[in-house]
Amino acid sequence: MSEKLWGGRFTKTTDEMINEFQASIGFDKRMYHEDIAGSIAHASMLAKCGIISEEDRDKIVGGLKDILARIEKGDFEFDVAFEDIHMNIEKRLTDAIGEAGGRLHTARSRNDQVALDTHMYVRREAVEVEKLILDMQKALVETAEKYSDVIMPGYTHLQRAQPILFGHHLLAYFSMFSRDFARFNGVYQRADIMPLGAGALAGTTFPIDRRFVAEFLNFENIYTNSLDAVSDRDYIMEFLSAASMLMVHLSRLSEETILWCSREFSFVELDDAHCTGSSMMPQKKNPDVSELVRGKTGRVIGHLMAMLTTVKGLPLAYNKDLQEDKEGIFDAIDTVKFSLAVYARILRGMKVNRDIMKRAVDEDFSNATDLADYLAKKGMPFRQAHAVSGQAVHYCIEHHKWLVDLTMDEFKALSPMFDEDIKDAILPETCVKTRNSLGGTSYEQVDLQIRAAKGLMDTERKITEEHEDKQIQVD
Amino acid sequence: MSEKLWGGRFTKTTDEMINEFQASIGFDKRMYHEDIAGSIAHASMLAKCGIISEEDRDKIVGGLKDILARIEKGDFEFDVAFEDIHMNIEKRLTDAIGEAGGRLHTARSRNDQVALDTHMYVRREAVEVEKLILDMQKALVETAEKYSDVIMPGYTHLQRAQPILFGHHLLAYFSMFSRDFARFNGVYQRADIMPLGAGALAGTTFPIDRRFVAEFLNFENIYTNSLDAVSDRDYIMEFLSAASMLMVHLSRLSEETILWCSREFSFVELDDAHCTGSSMMPQKKNPDVSELVRGKTGRVIGHLMAMLTTVKGLPLAYNKDLQEDKEGIFDAIDTVKFSLAVYARILRGMKVNRDIMKRAVDEDFSNATDLADYLAKKGMPFRQAHAVSGQAVHYCIEHHKWLVDLTMDEFKALSPMFDEDIKDAILPETCVKTRNSLGGTSYEQVDLQIRAAKGLMDTERKITEEHEDKQIQVD
Amino acid sequence: MSEKLWGGRFTKTTDEMINEFQASIGFDKRMYHEDIAGSIAHASMLAKCGIISEEDRDKIVGGLKDILARIEKGDFEFDVAFEDIHMNIEKRLTDAIGEAGGRLHTARSRNDQVALDTHMYVRREAVEVEKLILDMQKALVETAEKYSDVIMPGYTHLQRAQPILFGHHLLAYFSMFSRDFARFNGVYQRADIMPLGAGALAGTTFPIDRRFVAEFLNFENIYTNSLDAVSDRDYIMEFLSAASMLMVHLSRLSEETILWCSREFSFVELDDAHCTGSSMMPQKKNPDVSELVRGKTGRVIGHLMAMLTTVKGLPLAYNKDLQEDKEGIFDAIDTVKFSLAVYARILRGMKVNRDIMKRAVDEDFSNATDLADYLAKKGMPFRQAHAVSGQAVHYCIEHHKWLVDLTMDEFKALSPMFDEDIKDAILPETCVKTRNSLGGTSYEQVDLQIRAAKGLMDTERKITEEHEDKQIQVD
Amino acid sequence: MSEKLWGGRFTKTTDEMINEFQASIGFDKRMYHEDIAGSIAHASMLAKCGIISEEDRDKIVGGLKDILARIEKGDFEFDVAFEDIHMNIEKRLTDAIGEAGGRLHTARSRNDQVALDTHMYVRREAVEVEKLILDMQKALVETAEKYSDVIMPGYTHLQRAQPILFGHHLLAYFSMFSRDFARFNGVYQRADIMPLGAGALAGTTFPIDRRFVAEFLNFENIYTNSLDAVSDRDYIMEFLSAASMLMVHLSRLSEETILWCSREFSFVELDDAHCTGSSMMPQKKNPDVSELVRGKTGRVIGHLMAMLTTVKGLPLAYNKDLQEDKEGIFDAIDTVKFSLAVYARILRGMKVNRDIMKRAVDEDFSNATDLADYLAKKGMPFRQAHAVSGQAVHYCIEHHKWLVDLTMDEFKALSPMFDEDIKDAILPETCVKTRNSLGGTSYEQVDLQIRAAKGLMDTERKITEEHEDKQIQVD
Repeated sequence: MSEKLWGGRFTKTTDEMINEFQASIGFDKRMYHEDIAGSIAHASMLAKCGIISEEDRDKIVGGLKDILARIEKGDFEFDVAFEDIHMNIEKRLTDAIGEAGGRLHTARSRNDQVALDTHMYVRREAVEVEKLILDMQKALVETAEKYSDVIMPGYTHLQRAQPILFGHHLLAYFSMFSRDFARFNGVYQRADIMPLGAGALAGTTFPIDRRFVAEFLNFENIYTNSLDAVSDRDYIMEFLSAASMLMVHLSRLSEETILWCSREFSFVELDDAHCTGSSMMPQKKNPDVSELVRGKTGRVIGHLMAMLTTVKGLPLAYNKDLQEDKEGIFDAIDTVKFSLAVYARILRGMKVNRDIMKRAVDEDFSNATDLADYLAKKGMPFRQAHAVSGQAVHYCIEHHKWLVDLTMDEFKALSPMFDEDIKDAILPETCVKTRNSLGGTSYEQVDLQIRAAKGLMDTERKITEEHEDKQIQVD
Repeated sequence: MSEKLWGGRFTKTTDEMINEFQASIGFDKRMYHEDIAGSIAHASMLAKCGIISEEDRDKIVGGLKDILARIEKGDFEFDVAFEDIHMNIEKRLTDAIGEAGGRLHTARSRNDQVALDTHMYVRREAVEVEKLILDMQKALVETAEKYSDVIMPGYTHLQRAQPILFGHHLLAYFSMFSRDFARFNGVYQRADIMPLGAGALAGTTFPIDRRFVAEFLNFENIYTNSLDAVSDRDYIMEFLSAASMLMVHLSRLSEETILWCSREFSFVELDDAHCTGSSMMPQKKNPDVSELVRGKTGRVIGHLMAMLTTVKGLPLAYNKDLQEDKEGIFDAIDTVKFSLAVYARILRGMKVNRDIMKRAVDEDFSNATDLADYLAKKGMPFRQAHAVSGQAVHYCIEHHKWLVDLTMDEFKALSPMFDEDIKDAILPETCVKTRNSLGGTSYEQVDLQIRAAKGLMDTERKITEEHEDKQIQVD
Repeated sequence: MSEKLWGGRFTKTTDEMINEFQASIGFDKRMYHEDIAGSIAHASMLAKCGIISEEDRDKIVGGLKDILARIEKGDFEFDVAFEDIHMNIEKRLTDAIGEAGGRLHTARSRNDQVALDTHMYVRREAVEVEKLILDMQKALVETAEKYSDVIMPGYTHLQRAQPILFGHHLLAYFSMFSRDFARFNGVYQRADIMPLGAGALAGTTFPIDRRFVAEFLNFENIYTNSLDAVSDRDYIMEFLSAASMLMVHLSRLSEETILWCSREFSFVELDDAHCTGSSMMPQKKNPDVSELVRGKTGRVIGHLMAMLTTVKGLPLAYNKDLQEDKEGIFDAIDTVKFSLAVYARILRGMKVNRDIMKRAVDEDFSNATDLADYLAKKGMPFRQAHAVSGQAVHYCIEHHKWLVDLTMDEFKALSPMFDEDIKDAILPETCVKTRNSLGGTSYEQVDLQIRAAKGLMDTERKITEEHEDKQIQVD
Repeated sequence: MSEKLWGGRFTKTTDEMINEFQASIGFDKRMYHEDIAGSIAHASMLAKCGIISEEDRDKIVGGLKDILARIEKGDFEFDVAFEDIHMNIEKRLTDAIGEAGGRLHTARSRNDQVALDTHMYVRREAVEVEKLILDMQKALVETAEKYSDVIMPGYTHLQRAQPILFGHHLLAYFSMFSRDFARFNGVYQRADIMPLGAGALAGTTFPIDRRFVAEFLNFENIYTNSLDAVSDRDYIMEFLSAASMLMVHLSRLSEETILWCSREFSFVELDDAHCTGSSMMPQKKNPDVSELVRGKTGRVIGHLMAMLTTVKGLPLAYNKDLQEDKEGIFDAIDTVKFSLAVYARILRGMKVNRDIMKRAVDEDFSNATDLADYLAKKGMPFRQAHAVSGQAVHYCIEHHKWLVDLTMDEFKALSPMFDEDIKDAILPETCVKTRNSLGGTSYEQVDLQIRAAKGLMDTERKITEEHEDKQIQVD
């Protein structure tokens, strides 16, 4: 008595409230393109294998393309009574083309259908994220090059530690995003596995050809176990995990941007167009975007937590709990993409106050390691040289001096090993220039890093393009 | 040159993409009623304190009520250019009533305004949750009473442990929800603190009267520190925490419902109207709702995680990260309310298979403790009696018998302490009846529990009604 | 053939690796005092109810006190073969006193025994946390009083917003910890429920007296449902949730301490004894403690997430998963207690650089709201006054001036409403003094806050003392 | 006046309580082997580059090996005053060999030293996990082969869905663990990057050779940016993320094991040696290990959340918060390794009740899809065939029959398309045999899966061996 497509054994129609509770059409309609592409592939395979006629296939494919066009024109009403995107489309198709529509679901279950759609969707969006990571990396390299000679204090424990190049600092983020790119590449691979043909959980009795579908939809791999195919959500957890780490990286950059914009640091100024003001305080210019990106990091981590918790302890194969996989990843996708896009824009609009950065380096003790290194190079054991340098700092604090202000007498009093060349050895420019170890902050090393970064981006671009070439577009 | 209400010091308009990124109108419009009620309270206070004229107040209040009516009729267009619900309403108000509208924000900042709105919103929804918990408890008590004489196996480790009453089992959930009620009451109290008057962070130079506003809006308490008032999100974290525990309780009940509906258990049957079928497998009748509630537990826990992570490490006072507080709690509110409402319905529609439950108890060893207790009561140390009973079970397994099937000879061989009355002592009905310790599973104790539960619900109902009486309704 | 105390029905001894995996003695031995106190209460009740003899009770109590003494002397070897603290003690007791030991477990299961121990342990530690919160609050009030006249910039978005009193800033944390205290009080109440007598899950057939045990152990309440009693872990989740929020508060204070210690802010200096240096950089003095406390916030949140995830979806009643409740809460207890204790010390050793704070206020635009308020008080709508003030800031930036540097001509050019008294109205001292609204930053309000804080601490101290009086100490 | 190795600029010794709070020796001593191997590599490089003499190098290497031997003999006392494993070893070395010891830290900071140790440690343990995954996979394949002809009900929504082979079910887990292996391989790669030479954050002024160290310690890659090298914790987050997913897989298998062991399912029996009993209920035999593994899943997820939260929002480069990276990953490593090892043992000891499984399939409607497929193959549109099959199920329920019990008349009444061959088509054996699509449950497909699994394990074994060959062992 139910009007549901699955209602044969039921004696009552579904309670309306419960229908609304369990329907997913409100959010899974986002995958309409994947659903239609998947159904076209499925119908084509059924015909190719002689399970349906070519005529039926043509009707189905034609009908599906009509529906696609209508959805994209905004001329398609989704009905919560049909629960999800799959049933909404199948119902409409059958209304339009009759009996042939009723044959589309042969040798298929919603369990493998939704798995197919979601794999295709995540695979597509993983590529979008790859592209945005690349652009973010490009923005970092551009900015590093633009300010290639700017010296700033490097920090540990938010205490000034050693002078570094601003470009060197930015390139640390480049490295983080390179690992993010690699991880999203891993996500892509784990999403690039074709589940259709798993049926509800055990495969099908029809003589289907899963390889045909995989090729039709440009999938690299096919699930080798049908239970796994319908119950696997690894690629979603892995996407959320990669996204969480990426957001953690962005949150660190955001924290620094916020610090740098503060009056106390004043290292950079954001574009007026990238900030907002206060409804009460007329002087305010707030780095809202950086704060939001930092805040949204929690949001994406929350989605990861949600998904891990949801899948934990579920028996095989499909359970309805798994329907909870979508809203979280959809929101994470939007958040990550928007955050990357916005941040690249922030970087490109950022003005660097090189003088303030330089002054910061002149007026601190971040050259104390160089003082110790100086002595160590003259033969003093480093541990002892460290102690002498610590005493020098202590002496300076007591006498309101910086290390560069010490007289030769004062130096000699600290250690007879000091010579005139100590003066040059502790200039910020020297400190930077001489940190010339591989990956260090010297001009030479930073230049090498930039060149390597460009090479890496070429490789990443090639991977992204290959992935893009495999995107499916119903025409 | 900015058109923003805060744009005096800016030389550029906000980048459109960034505007969209940082705008909250997409979700905070949900608080329109609170925003308008809060502004009416604020304007009334300003007039009462002589900060604005009574004429201006009347214009403002009238204008706000017009806007409220229009929003509720669906005749109000929210504009992302005005960022949030506060600015959207203020802008429209000023368009409508002119200069008086420009005076509404006197002695107020968006920081304390949004805090006020959110407190009122969370306070209101906490009451809604209280009501739904109560109804869920009612459904549990009703069901416990309806099946008051049904015996089922009690489990530990999902192994049959001891026979219990089905009503006793359900009342365990009643207790859990009582603690949830108490926690939401705590949430209510922590939300029932009035932040307005904190300004941006430091209070205001105008001679305002915060107590007037608190009374106007039925707040029990007032924030005593203005920095705390604008940066506190405890009540949101605490709501999410209480909601997470409540969902954990529902997830346990869901797990059990799913088990009980399985062919293997077959303890209960859900109403056809509360289940769905399969697109592929015609015989399926799935407990989707229970699975979804179990799954959505992860979602609410995820929101809690998100919020804790977002607030962690933020300096005082307001930071834009805090704008991320809303979507999570909004979704958690919807999820918790829907889950409770749906589950009460499930319970009321559930059919209990008493015969199957009883047969389960007849055919297991869950009376082995009673065998041991029997011996212990005859003077054997419990630890030794436990060993004898274990041997009895072992003997039965080897000889394909249940304990009730043992002959007196077999009993005597196990221990000479056994007498004829052992036969009665290990009948399931006896096992249940004699577990008459306080809180135990005997008919008498379960009856006492039901009466106590009704008393507790009366108390909870009274609290809820008091909270409801304090709800604010602009008329 | 098993040597386990529960081994009657088993034909093999437990696999050694699995024994190690499932044993909890490695961590639950921490609850030895609770276990012994609980067993003494249980034995006393058994004797009082005539279930065991008084002689047996005396042997048991004596034996248990001996064991307690030995454990406290470090003269007790815990054996992983006996799995947990309960079996270790019972085994040793029976070895020492013989048959009477075998009667101790009458009418009891490990399920209600471990619940009892954990409730007592959490209850005890909740009081310890209450005491440390109080001391932290005391340190905050002391510091606020010590620097009662120090003006600093107040921040929103880490941008200078309005001048505030340093004491006002600290008291925001006082308010947070007050809510933490209230939440831990809630935890205390939810831990203060007596589970013993629930047996394995269904109560017991022995004529026990649970009220006697509750009184013996100073419990306020008794679980009314035996299944709930053995499967409830709410009090642990709630402790972890309260602890997470408390750590979030400490993390915010830590973030600020770290900022304030940075060269850029230089608002405070920590005691040398509270900082550490660098193995490489001789000049470093790092605020390690603040960083660690901030970092440990994640740890406690992680424990909360672990517990919520673990309990999610468990059927009633006891499942072994619940054994995972202990290590997380033990670590959280240690972390929270240590963090509070250390931070109070940090605060008390902190030196405030009042001159630097004051200079910060003199050289910024945080008085721009006061400029707008000035105009608003002269009758200009606030929204318009805000715009004029924004233009003033913009003008100053262009002309490298602060607002206090503007001439009357410049003021008049911005608005003819300005008079000579504008000069005084925007002095930092005035800005602070005139924010005299309830909870605002004025000297008067901060003084009121301090007095209220002291009153609140008196109330909290009374609660804590009542809780302490109920602590159980076996003598 | 401090006795710390970094104490030159300090005027006070460290507060004892704070020392204890910030010291990491309590847990990082676990990395002693890595620390010594790293220092040997560093000293060898310093000598090779002429930064220290060969004589000093020999003293250092000899001294370090002495210390290693002493630690492994348990003859080394770690002192909390020296904070961490690095300083404990350096201090002892210098005590033993004098001035040369003081030269070891030349061109090195604890920041890059701890990064090196942790990378080596995680890399080593990633290989251990790979080995245990492999053994778990082996146990799954063995069990699948052992019971290759056992039919059981396949489930979705915990409702019987379609008959499947038990081996097919187990191999779904094989696939999950294959992805886990791939992810741990990714972790290995991200851990296999050499950080030493980054110094505190900016590189060093000494002419070091990082490639030499990388080769010495078998690292594949070198960090290209020194700030990134000391602040990167991606490999830890990624390990925890891979471990969380692996535990989620184990939790699903645990849930199923627990279900299968229940009286209601009775599908399998665990070895007595792998279960425990109850202190109160003599009949109990509990699947503790499965419950614990399921429970410990929350624990590992908690560590992931902790780490993500801790790193979120940290500015570059090193911050002390990062010290919180260790305890979580150490515990996760132990938990994952132990869980895998124990579970392989459980599987190998598990007895399968094939008759009960088969009976379960005979007495349900899990052949209803085959009924629908039958009609679809005869030309009826699947959607209509699904409806007919649903009606058949409904009819059977009303008449207390199974589908195989229907007479030909009854079949014909449902649809005239039914012929005699329907009887065979819906036998469980047929249902299994005919699900012969790629990855399906037929005997043929499961056999193919087993062969493919063996091939994959060969590949994985090769990878693992390569990784093992690169393990560092100081001799």
